[in-house]
Amino acid sequence: MITLHPLKRKAEILSAPLATGESWFIIGICAAALAIIFNTLRSDGEPLLALLALSTLGFAASFCLIKWLGPTFVAIGLSGEDMSKRRKKRIPEGMGVISGLVFLMVCCAFQAFGPYLLEKNVTRIVGDQIVTTKVEFVPNTNVFYRFPHAELSTYNASIVSILFTLVLGFVDDASDLRWRYKIFIPIFAIMPTQGAYFARGGGTTAVIPIPLQPWLGGTIDLGIFYYVFMVAVAIFMTNSVNILAGVNGIEVSQSLAIAFLLVFNDALYLFWPENNPGIYPNPTIEAHLFSIYILLPFIGVSLALAWHNWFPATVFVGDSYCYFAGMVFAVVGIFGHFSKTLLLLTIPQLANFVYSLPQLAKIVPCPRHRLPHFNARSGLMEPSVTVWQKPPKAFIAIVLKTLGRFHLLRVTKDEKGQIIETSNFTILNLWLVWFGPRREDRLVMDIVGLQIVCGLLGLLVRHKFAGFIFEFDNLMTGRALGVKV
Amino acid sequence: MITLHPLKRKAEILSAPLATGESWFIIGICAAALAIIFNTLRSDGEPLLALLALSTLGFAASFCLIKWLGPTFVAIGLSGEDMSKRRKKRIPEGMGVISGLVFLMVCCAFQAFGPYLLEKNVTRIVGDQIVTTKVEFVPNTNVFYRFPHAELSTYNASIVSILFTLVLGFVDDASDLRWRYKIFIPIFAIMPTQGAYFARGGGTTAVIPIPLQPWLGGTIDLGIFYYVFMVAVAIFMTNSVNILAGVNGIEVSQSLAIAFLLVFNDALYLFWPENNPGIYPNPTIEAHLFSIYILLPFIGVSLALAWHNWFPATVFVGDSYCYFAGMVFAVVGIFGHFSKTLLLLTIPQLANFVYSLPQLAKIVPCPRHRLPHFNARSGLMEPSVTVWQKPPKAFIAIVLKTLGRFHLLRVTKDEKGQIIETSNFTILNLWLVWFGPRREDRLVMDIVGLQIVCGLLGLLVRHKFAGFIFEFDNLMTGRALGVKV
Repeated sequence: MITLHPLKRKAEILSAPLATGESWFIIGICAAALAIIFNTLRSDGEPLLALLALSTLGFAASFCLIKWLGPTFVAIGLSGEDMSKRRKKRIPEGMGVISGLVFLMVCCAFQAFGPYLLEKNVTRIVGDQIVTTKVEFVPNTNVFYRFPHAELSTYNASIVSILFTLVLGFVDDASDLRWRYKIFIPIFAIMPTQGAYFARGGGTTAVIPIPLQPWLGGTIDLGIFYYVFMVAVAIFMTNSVNILAGVNGIEVSQSLAIAFLLVFNDALYLFWPENNPGIYPNPTIEAHLFSIYILLPFIGVSLALAWHNWFPATVFVGDSYCYFAGMVFAVVGIFGHFSKTLLLLTIPQLANFVYSLPQLAKIVPCPRHRLPHFNARSGLMEPSVTVWQKPPKAFIAIVLKTLGRFHLLRVTKDEKGQIIETSNFTILNLWLVWFGPRREDRLVMDIVGLQIVCGLLGLLVRHKFAGFIFEFDNLMTGRALGVKV
Repeated sequence: MITLHPLKRKAEILSAPLATGESWFIIGICAAALAIIFNTLRSDGEPLLALLALSTLGFAASFCLIKWLGPTFVAIGLSGEDMSKRRKKRIPEGMGVISGLVFLMVCCAFQAFGPYLLEKNVTRIVGDQIVTTKVEFVPNTNVFYRFPHAELSTYNASIVSILFTLVLGFVDDASDLRWRYKIFIPIFAIMPTQGAYFARGGGTTAVIPIPLQPWLGGTIDLGIFYYVFMVAVAIFMTNSVNILAGVNGIEVSQSLAIAFLLVFNDALYLFWPENNPGIYPNPTIEAHLFSIYILLPFIGVSLALAWHNWFPATVFVGDSYCYFAGMVFAVVGIFGHFSKTLLLLTIPQLANFVYSLPQLAKIVPCPRHRLPHFNARSGLMEPSVTVWQKPPKAFIAIVLKTLGRFHLLRVTKDEKGQIIETSNFTILNLWLVWFGPRREDRLVMDIVGLQIVCGLLGLLVRHKFAGFIFEFDNLMTGRALGVKV
């Protein structure tokens, strides 16, 4: 009954085959992953190993599906043109939706390995009666073991939030939603997370920084504003990846950088025994296990997408991937109780957002695309510019010229000294202003390097110097928990 | 970058307004629902009341969105032609996806009301230390109260399964998937449910019917086959609604009939105090509360869809709704431990499936559409027929003529006595063969009446006569649980 596109009526699935080398590579890692899973099932089942194997399968599935389904995406109209190449070619757009769906399958499969039960009702039949006995389990104290079964409710709620975001992001890819509709995507999608957070009696108490303590006390109960804060985190995170975009591979590689930094931060809590005094269950440990158990599958599917999206890209990731990645970070930050740390890891995104404000607020003219300009002659990326049709007002001109003097903007003046061009307000353009034209992949590597350096500095500040601002670091929470009342 | 459809490039959201009467109706019920929710939040919060109000909001949201978004669906190509009307008109197709998404929002919002915690860690700051105290809650013994927090994991897993089904069903609506791809929809979608079932240590033991007990014993542990059984339930349920389709309103109204019967069955456990001996937590009670907490929002959004899909339909529900409804029943049956009861409630669907087999197996020619034929002169529906281009083989001819003699088929013969036409093998056609041509809505009411009568008989058999086949009815489980070991 549907007439979306003539090709689809015939249900003709176009498909691109894998290269021979790729096939063997995929078969190899799948075999290894299946062997690990089989072993895990036979023995007691270490969830971290099982998840590594499952994430590898996720990588393989994502890798193949992206390649196989590319032509179908193009055929139904989900395609885009790469503006930064000499030879223009339509390539599939919105491929993030495939990575996202594979991610969700991995998370679902992991539920058979991850959680443990504290107790279980065993029902037997004795004579003509049903008899129920309660069996209690002693949880293993190895931190790489399972998380409590009740946490599965938050795990599943995260999945629902992420899946919602993915679906709405895909609708955006397919139909190019207006900004005023887009804003509802994270607001709706975060609701399952809020529900689960509320249902588990989630704390709404925040620690007050020392300088403010004389006025506000040691802690403050934010109450309903904590839920508003969650929405803000969701909106910021889903858009933060989206805003630093437009160059082959940048969306995926910045997301991968943030994900690896988060896993590194989790590892600080899990691998160093002094932070883990063997109390079990320990909420801090659980929060970070939870975070790893979401991030590993995410890294798996993102690596597969990065492979195809890296310069020169054969697929685009689409808004669906940007929103999906942002929501993964948001739920991990919310349930892991480290939303502030999360913000520290997104300093380049925050900086980009602040730097973009003059154009977003229309103080400076904002062209539809602000991605760096491709110079077809040199093959390099250069800063893209906004042309001032009429010269800026006196005050704005002074500000722009000052920015230009501090190398925060490239300003081109005519012979009368009036501004005729300024570079666009994104950190990608600023980087090119500072360090000169470079090839697309080099630019991405630079920005991702910046992301990693900023992130590591952020973590250093967070764990070493937080004591100046807050009374304690929650790396110490484990120790503090040792004293029970 | 997307060129799915010219209209969409402009991000032009076409919209049909509500009629004045409809607007006031919606505003009225929304006001009432919000008042109830506000009251629930102020008092102790009875979840069943809150859910009724939330489901009403779900009805309203679904009602409006279906009306508003109809023209957009048509514009992007999601539309179909109603073959059973005098005046052919393209109307929106695949509207079930809207009901499904609203359903999921209601379920997410309900998480703030439904579950209770057995215990909670309260973290306070005493001096320079973090102190965690464990607070235990005494659950309320009123059965209409909350389900344990750990059950939220299964609630969310159900939502993931349903959302997956919905997404894949919508892909099917948009791209008309081949049958060999469709079969994977329920297999993938049921995985989260299986994961959560496994994670909570779900029993895989089935009770053996009395006649087989000498050989197999009282119970049998199905082990991994229990999970295969879940897949089978998911495949059957998702397709059962889909197979009895093609007439305005039949998909939604049969789903509503099944949903109401399931709620009635749940009520048998919850409202009659002798079945509920006040033991808390009580797994049987929890299972049926769980079922109600999924079915009420489903009924809300389905009623809204039925309103628009009822004869003469202004929208089509699409495969997305059929799969969605089927998966709702499947997860409710699996987590409620009443998959066998569920099958009893789908007798017309089972009968239709069995009756269809000759055509599904291609023993009898199967035209693309088997829905009843619309007689434009009388305005009534008549049985549609398969024309035999060449006469059937002798054996098949005998079987067909025998079926015809028992009024299980309409067989038309030529003057030589050879079969030239047989009515199509669906119960819709069979009903028309038995009771003569009738208008589309009358046919739907008949079939839904049949569904309700069969379902009530099924429940009667299940609760009153199950003792002949099984040693006990699980309506008795509550009493049996009274004896603890």
